[in-house]
Amino acid sequence: MAKVAPRTLSGFMELLPQQQMKMEKMMEALRHSYSVYGFTPLDTPVIESSEVLLAKGGGETEKQIYRFQKGDSDIALRFDLTVPLAKYVAANYGKLSFPFRRYQIGKVYRGERAQRGRFREFYQADIDIIGDGKLDIINEAEIPAIIYNTFKTLGISKFKIKVNNRKLLNGFYSMNGMSEKSAEIMRTVDKLDKIGAEKVKNLLIDDVHMLPCKAENVLDFMAIQGTNAEVIERLTQYKGMDETFDQGLEELIEVTKYLSAFGVPEENFAIDLTIARGLDYYTGTVYETEMTEHPEIGSVCSGGRYDNLAEYYTDKQLPGVGISIGLTRLFYVLQEQELLSDDIITSPCDALVLPMTDDMSYAISAATFLRTKGIRTQIYGEKKKFKGKMNYADKIGTPYVIFVGEDEINEKLLSVKDMVSGEQQKLTAEAAAELIMKSVNERNSGAVIKE
Amino acid sequence: MAKVAPRTLSGFMELLPQQQMKMEKMMEALRHSYSVYGFTPLDTPVIESSEVLLAKGGGETEKQIYRFQKGDSDIALRFDLTVPLAKYVAANYGKLSFPFRRYQIGKVYRGERAQRGRFREFYQADIDIIGDGKLDIINEAEIPAIIYNTFKTLGISKFKIKVNNRKLLNGFYSMNGMSEKSAEIMRTVDKLDKIGAEKVKNLLIDDVHMLPCKAENVLDFMAIQGTNAEVIERLTQYKGMDETFDQGLEELIEVTKYLSAFGVPEENFAIDLTIARGLDYYTGTVYETEMTEHPEIGSVCSGGRYDNLAEYYTDKQLPGVGISIGLTRLFYVLQEQELLSDDIITSPCDALVLPMTDDMSYAISAATFLRTKGIRTQIYGEKKKFKGKMNYADKIGTPYVIFVGEDEINEKLLSVKDMVSGEQQKLTAEAAAELIMKSVNERNSGAVIKE
Repeated sequence: MAKVAPRTLSGFMELLPQQQMKMEKMMEALRHSYSVYGFTPLDTPVIESSEVLLAKGGGETEKQIYRFQKGDSDIALRFDLTVPLAKYVAANYGKLSFPFRRYQIGKVYRGERAQRGRFREFYQADIDIIGDGKLDIINEAEIPAIIYNTFKTLGISKFKIKVNNRKLLNGFYSMNGMSEKSAEIMRTVDKLDKIGAEKVKNLLIDDVHMLPCKAENVLDFMAIQGTNAEVIERLTQYKGMDETFDQGLEELIEVTKYLSAFGVPEENFAIDLTIARGLDYYTGTVYETEMTEHPEIGSVCSGGRYDNLAEYYTDKQLPGVGISIGLTRLFYVLQEQELLSDDIITSPCDALVLPMTDDMSYAISAATFLRTKGIRTQIYGEKKKFKGKMNYADKIGTPYVIFVGEDEINEKLLSVKDMVSGEQQKLTAEAAAELIMKSVNERNSGAVIKE
Repeated sequence: MAKVAPRTLSGFMELLPQQQMKMEKMMEALRHSYSVYGFTPLDTPVIESSEVLLAKGGGETEKQIYRFQKGDSDIALRFDLTVPLAKYVAANYGKLSFPFRRYQIGKVYRGERAQRGRFREFYQADIDIIGDGKLDIINEAEIPAIIYNTFKTLGISKFKIKVNNRKLLNGFYSMNGMSEKSAEIMRTVDKLDKIGAEKVKNLLIDDVHMLPCKAENVLDFMAIQGTNAEVIERLTQYKGMDETFDQGLEELIEVTKYLSAFGVPEENFAIDLTIARGLDYYTGTVYETEMTEHPEIGSVCSGGRYDNLAEYYTDKQLPGVGISIGLTRLFYVLQEQELLSDDIITSPCDALVLPMTDDMSYAISAATFLRTKGIRTQIYGEKKKFKGKMNYADKIGTPYVIFVGEDEINEKLLSVKDMVSGEQQKLTAEAAAELIMKSVNERNSGAVIKE
């Protein structure tokens, strides 16, 4: 029979079992971390009506979207988790309690040009807090804590949460009479990291057509750095000139005020006035997160405050704040950089039971016992030579092998081999379970990312 | 601005938060149960090349599939998890260890006619064990244990795993010279439950054109019931007449032999010769699972042994055995029948912290502490009156509310209100955490399905 090549589409991540296990650990860590902050899990369809998905319309989105006809329906695959959230909240407004806090980890689709490290199907891991009409600034202050806890749980400690406030920027541009050019200025300033202050200044003068003194004003402002207290002190000097600026400063003060109560060390946090995050969606605090020893990765968790989540679906004013992790890309980069731990267990089982007799009753009973204890147990029942069986144990990387032969059956014991140390001992089922659980729990307490 | 109606497509399940939480608990129970049996989690793309998905081609599948063009690519959404598994195993054959045991819980897509309780996007929760060339019968014997443990974990005890072996059926038809009509006979016998033996007999005579004595033979065979030992004894009387039958009987004996070692009570298991599960895919043991007090739901977990998983992609012989739970439909039916527990916690948080002072530092510190203990904690920081805050607590159904006012701050205590009993007490943060954890763990130890 002619065969069809078993290929996976390019731009679609499909992992081998051991990698997949690491991905699962990442997702588990995210679910746990998001839950601990009181977010409810949400699951929305991958397919939506195109009219709903493209209500906002225009731009890159429309070009990249997977859109098609099924029967009479014009439908499309979601390209983010924010639009489905907006739809969900608008549709279920009367049944939800506000602030509505949800997390969603799900696949989204964008038909980008295929290239290494770019995915057309990828997981986003989002949290959002949606208010009804109003949303207190305390929610913006809480976000860094969630980011901090999430990355700590994943195993990273060398990262920085960079925070800015759009009102500070807008206010600053306004007080300098640059509001009209603010979009252009922000795009240019965004290059600071890459090309340095001098070149940005020249661009501002030559391309954005700013007066040199104004360009310097911008660069001086963007260069404000230091501890939170120092930055706020510097910013306070601009106070009283623009209402929006003053409001932004007040918000920034609120956001930094509770950091230590929220358990975020100051070394993992920085006010960074160069962060802008897109041009029109965000209206208040904005966030980026950088792995300090891997700035080349870019922001691994970004988001911000917005004023109106669902304006295309409802008249209700629904302000919110949210962050998103591009999980598939993050996983890909971590793997590339060899930052995923090899210490965690990626075997499908913690214990592999090898029956050495024809009647497997005793071996099966032993496995059943271990399973009731929560130990992930596999029985290898294939009729292979001993070497073949051990080969399998090695290949799947099981931490423990349990031999069950005549002796073990007669003595009502199990021979437990630690595949890391090579040590083998005869134990009761109870003692074997205890030993395995202790060691497995230890190894599983390690994080999925190493530094 | 004109609004777009925020609608969800018909045939796509989208749950409110409290229902979603129950769904999550079901998925968590499945992940746990499958893992304990040594299955590795797998995740494959939702989109595949149409050529790959439709390699087998034909039939209902092709009509129902979501298939479309993107650029030059003819692509489609997966309609089950078995075809992607076949592709995966064929593509990664050299990198996998066999038997390859994987579970996958994922969404699949079928453009069925929309009707109540029918879904176009739905979760399947599958496990499969794939052998390389051979696969020992012990794997078929293990499946009932997995089904048993899974449904026990979900909270069901009144269910029956019905098992048959296709070789018994094929052998029986062959020894009676009915092989050619076997498909038709099986379709007719399938109606036994609905229309009874007499009418089936008439159909076999009138429509399938069988001699009355042959029709009776069939019905006598199908009527074999009793304990495993009794059924096997009755079947042994047919022994020696057909090789396939004898092999099927041997396999059935092996499958029942280890049931008690696997921890499956005989009351949850029954040999049922009327089970056939489709006509050509399965070749050995077949499984169905019935909720005994809700037979109208039909089989909630089905599967069987097959000889060649990936014949459309590779020359390698890859026999396997697998089962599948149609999770979305199961969830829907359980909800309809009011079989989902209301005792488990469906609130986004276990504890809702209500700061009663302007400075929230102490309240936030308390929340941070509870979170480090793994307690799902939300801070309600909106500026509302007390009644509005309590209203929110009631609506989200939080088990505990923690008040933090001047008194609590001065005394370094927390006022903890149990929202079920109404009891309120002042406790240290440590004591509060202990109290909440204990009660939450108790409630969470309950199962998601009630009987």
